[in-house]
Amino acid sequence: MEVSDISDLAQGVMAGERRALARAITMIESERSDHRIRAEALLAALPRERQALRIGFSGAPGVGKSSFIESFGLHLCEQGLRVAVLAVDPSSARSGGSILGDKTRMDRLSRCAGAYIRPSPSQSRLGGVARRSREAVSLCEAAGFDVVLIETVGVGQSETHVAGLCDIFVLMLAPAAGDELQGVKRGIMEAADLVLVNKADGELHAAAVQSCSDYSGALRLLRRRPRDAPGFPMALTVSAHTGAGVSEAWTRIGALAAWRQEAGHFATLRAAQARMWFEEEVRHRVLSRLTDDPAMRSRLSGLGDQVERGDLAPDEAVAAMLDALQA
Amino acid sequence: MEVSDISDLAQGVMAGERRALARAITMIESERSDHRIRAEALLAALPRERQALRIGFSGAPGVGKSSFIESFGLHLCEQGLRVAVLAVDPSSARSGGSILGDKTRMDRLSRCAGAYIRPSPSQSRLGGVARRSREAVSLCEAAGFDVVLIETVGVGQSETHVAGLCDIFVLMLAPAAGDELQGVKRGIMEAADLVLVNKADGELHAAAVQSCSDYSGALRLLRRRPRDAPGFPMALTVSAHTGAGVSEAWTRIGALAAWRQEAGHFATLRAAQARMWFEEEVRHRVLSRLTDDPAMRSRLSGLGDQVERGDLAPDEAVAAMLDALQA
Repeated sequence: MEVSDISDLAQGVMAGERRALARAITMIESERSDHRIRAEALLAALPRERQALRIGFSGAPGVGKSSFIESFGLHLCEQGLRVAVLAVDPSSARSGGSILGDKTRMDRLSRCAGAYIRPSPSQSRLGGVARRSREAVSLCEAAGFDVVLIETVGVGQSETHVAGLCDIFVLMLAPAAGDELQGVKRGIMEAADLVLVNKADGELHAAAVQSCSDYSGALRLLRRRPRDAPGFPMALTVSAHTGAGVSEAWTRIGALAAWRQEAGHFATLRAAQARMWFEEEVRHRVLSRLTDDPAMRSRLSGLGDQVERGDLAPDEAVAAMLDALQA
Repeated sequence: MEVSDISDLAQGVMAGERRALARAITMIESERSDHRIRAEALLAALPRERQALRIGFSGAPGVGKSSFIESFGLHLCEQGLRVAVLAVDPSSARSGGSILGDKTRMDRLSRCAGAYIRPSPSQSRLGGVARRSREAVSLCEAAGFDVVLIETVGVGQSETHVAGLCDIFVLMLAPAAGDELQGVKRGIMEAADLVLVNKADGELHAAAVQSCSDYSGALRLLRRRPRDAPGFPMALTVSAHTGAGVSEAWTRIGALAAWRQEAGHFATLRAAQARMWFEEEVRHRVLSRLTDDPAMRSRLSGLGDQVERGDLAPDEAVAAMLDALQA
């Protein structure tokens, strides 16, 4: 791809063309170093002024995140908003792969002219997930989307990544008995701005209302953060199936976003997130020298062979590798 | 501490003195760089010939790991074996800290002359957990223990650390309904040599037997590994409370260990683990330059401030930091 192609791609992204955006995201997701250089040129060519409201959705598999996000996205499209949906999936090959994948096609939402859906990123080492997600959000913003919905599979560190990427963090839960409340990780509850208890329909309606009340109680016990508007964090019942609560969820999120913007918390939060990204990216880049440089990769592998054969003590091999990196 | 003190400490460890061992483990757990230098001198002063049977225990909080390990350790002591118990706990400050802690005093086992218990390591960055655990195991081996039991809290990456540290990996589970079997992470089931269904006593006895049968079925569906002796991996019911199954668990583990030793799998597995440690330690050391060197730490912090104030784009700050590291 030539320089002019990068420029064309940037133009396409800025014009909000979905195909250009898809190509751009594929480029930033690539692990190839030549793709990386182009990705950085592309990002540099895009303006940074456009900002979207970034909403993160977390929750265990099976709570109905994707179905809710589709209903929620359709509701936003009906309001005339342009909506992008991204998935953050740091699952490794070993853990059995993507949980999203096929399930997240979001057929109805994908037919909306104002919507763009990027189901599941290519799998990769964990280290790059945060950067790729952040860059994908930037691309969606440059493409003029008003709202970016970021879905995580809710496994491992994906929640931390998403919490560090969004303006508003939504935790989705299924109706559950009161004593199952303990099963929700404390850290993730503390990060939530809004808890949505899904499946508040049919036989589960009563259980959802009860769970919502339980979670409301749990949220009231948390220490208040400066960025909590009065009444937040709050819990609501919703149903992706019937659409109940979808409109209210958006109203509440909109009110919280407006309050935060007014009070300066948006800027503060994004500044803190930028710092976090900087530190994480430094760590990632420092480590990637071990794998990106063929000479280093081969030295690491050769020393590993010697350690495995018992020809070299692990500590001596570590020292030799550090020497090689310093040289 | 002078060189002669290191030599005295090494003598004490080799003589199997529990106080010397405790001091040595505290030293290797320290994050202070002067302690680290002494720790490396100590490790270099110790012979590597002595080897213990290393058994890892994983399982979610509440399954009764500590109680079982105490019963199991007492059984080994009764056989005349010297037993060390170590805990691997990579919990971060944010996740709410140690899960073991007070609960794992193991009063009965701690009164045995042949037992040494190290309840919970000091908390630290995740990166150092694997090294510290490995070095603590080495110290126990140098101190002449026959068996080292390594308990993990079963949270996050601790299971991977322990699986990479032991000769035999035991997964402990509580009795559960058949459809809860899905809740066990696939990767951890695949790493198990032995599944122990605890609490096979009183009202839960029947449920434990049923669960054990379910898990046996699940284990038979896994691909066989070269290091699996005939019949392994297997599931057994045990009761830390009544002591039922403790003796059989030890018999089975002993048989598996003997088979693996005979077939050369012990050496192969430890060689592969040594390679893994080498690679992990390289990554840890590469990253620790960012935090150990005061000049680097201050540069990272200063650039982070600029990013947070918006005076510098994150990408430019990353480039500046990488330049500083190269210089």
